[in-house]
Amino acid sequence: MGKVVSEYVVVGDVGGTNVRFAVSKDPRRYGGPTKIEHFWKSPNVKYETFSDALDAFLATIDIKPKRAVFALAGPIRNNTVTLTNHSSWQVCGEELAKQFGMDQVDLLNDFAAMARSIPELGLNSDGQGLKTICEGISAPGRPIIVAGPGTGFGFATLIPNENKTWQVLRGEGGHQAFSPTTALEADVYKRLLEKASYVSIESVSAGVGFNQLLETMFEVFGQTPEKLSPATAHERAKLGDKVCDAVCRMRANTVMTAYGNAVLANGAKGGVVAAGGVTTALIDYISAPEALSRFFDRGPMSSYMTDVPIYLITSAEAPLLGAAAY
Amino acid sequence: MGKVVSEYVVVGDVGGTNVRFAVSKDPRRYGGPTKIEHFWKSPNVKYETFSDALDAFLATIDIKPKRAVFALAGPIRNNTVTLTNHSSWQVCGEELAKQFGMDQVDLLNDFAAMARSIPELGLNSDGQGLKTICEGISAPGRPIIVAGPGTGFGFATLIPNENKTWQVLRGEGGHQAFSPTTALEADVYKRLLEKASYVSIESVSAGVGFNQLLETMFEVFGQTPEKLSPATAHERAKLGDKVCDAVCRMRANTVMTAYGNAVLANGAKGGVVAAGGVTTALIDYISAPEALSRFFDRGPMSSYMTDVPIYLITSAEAPLLGAAAY
Repeated sequence: MGKVVSEYVVVGDVGGTNVRFAVSKDPRRYGGPTKIEHFWKSPNVKYETFSDALDAFLATIDIKPKRAVFALAGPIRNNTVTLTNHSSWQVCGEELAKQFGMDQVDLLNDFAAMARSIPELGLNSDGQGLKTICEGISAPGRPIIVAGPGTGFGFATLIPNENKTWQVLRGEGGHQAFSPTTALEADVYKRLLEKASYVSIESVSAGVGFNQLLETMFEVFGQTPEKLSPATAHERAKLGDKVCDAVCRMRANTVMTAYGNAVLANGAKGGVVAAGGVTTALIDYISAPEALSRFFDRGPMSSYMTDVPIYLITSAEAPLLGAAAY
Repeated sequence: MGKVVSEYVVVGDVGGTNVRFAVSKDPRRYGGPTKIEHFWKSPNVKYETFSDALDAFLATIDIKPKRAVFALAGPIRNNTVTLTNHSSWQVCGEELAKQFGMDQVDLLNDFAAMARSIPELGLNSDGQGLKTICEGISAPGRPIIVAGPGTGFGFATLIPNENKTWQVLRGEGGHQAFSPTTALEADVYKRLLEKASYVSIESVSAGVGFNQLLETMFEVFGQTPEKLSPATAHERAKLGDKVCDAVCRMRANTVMTAYGNAVLANGAKGGVVAAGGVTTALIDYISAPEALSRFFDRGPMSSYMTDVPIYLITSAEAPLLGAAAY
């Protein structure tokens, strides 16, 4: 039986470990909200190349899409990318289009794709891939921040356009200068500045900076530094360990300060969508009154922050949805 | 002789002290670059109301515009505003349209109007209202930051749209949390945190925070605080006064850190346009290698910052140009 050439777009999401595929009725023809079908997932290492994996997925469906959008973790140039954490896979949109007989194959950054999924998931509606961290009112027509720490710190602003579409403004916001918010944090910061000439939001809150932050916190508390995994440090913090608790609080406070800064910078009264593995791991600290106060207490601008909602993104399918809607 | 009803738009710019008017051939019909004609300026206090001033301007020209755009320093709601620093003037777009027989009168924020003037002035071209602080290459199609301290700290991002127009993303970026960049600044910051629970970029670099910063710097240097005007402090700094020099450097460093943060947050490789009276007053400090390093030295993202140009806006007509192009 031949395959049906249809108005579907194939979407993919490739991280350092797993590749996910699905199809979506082409939203350029059918309008929103975007829905994905035939979700498929596999470890990258099962396939020698990206096109082998795509081949395996397409063999499972009775649809022959003419268009594809793939979200990938890596710097995309000229519709081509080498994956940041799985460098044996090189992906080229034009080559894939030729190989699979498609009209168009677009590659885009995975964080931008995730950001673009937010309007499809729908704000103000729990249980559809977003969890409320702090209730509020998403102001219609205003920008939304999608950001947060994992290994690094992703950062994007979603901007509604006049014609009811969305633009993703991508940046390197995790590399903005760190701002301490207490005397303890200022002391830790002074020590960090002795070790590295530049200390960013990412280097305090994300995975890449964890070891150095932990070491420095031990020093500031006058203790001999121990090497701990983030998970172990979180467990110890829960059991009352002061150094580990201070590390978790400083990471969470840094995230919340960064979110509030982003809202102020871009007038993002649409709200904040928290993303990233560290955000999820530290959710208890991030939801705590101390961290929330870093978001909301902004001197004369505190009233500006009132009602700005904060959500956590929980949907693993988000980058696929965002790719479909892009 | 009757006036010519023409394809001109009347533009205005109203600050706390002066009102400026001009006309421009309607850029919606004639395309860019926008040029203004019949520039007119008067102190606000000469006129009881805004419409009296407008009347006086219109009496000087042989043109009867059918559309107007006015840039005003104040919060605009429903096309109506009470001027922040000249509160006897209330301005309502609909009333003005009726009174002057115009089809449309739009009010917009003066900082947004100034930001919108940048593409009209043209980047990479000295001597047309922009002065180069640091040479670079404005990446085509990328956002541009327009920001800086005066009494407060204005902040906007210019975003190029697909159809070759520009969108102004307005925010309250001057109210983002302050980030110290040296041990001395961290010590000053700790003292500022004792005086106010929240310390913003604006409260360190802009006019509103000057007295408190100066007082705190005297304390950190172990000296009895003196009350000085910003101008006097700048003069003393030039003569070698250590406290005043430290204040000027901290303000300039804060401005440059904020500019670099904004570029990182919004991927603004189009460049930075420095604005505001404090920026102009401190231009020697802002152009100094120490302040520039706050902009460019961003750890692993330093290469991202290379070539991002920094300009100072010098044109007093900028808000009028921006209003015409809006």
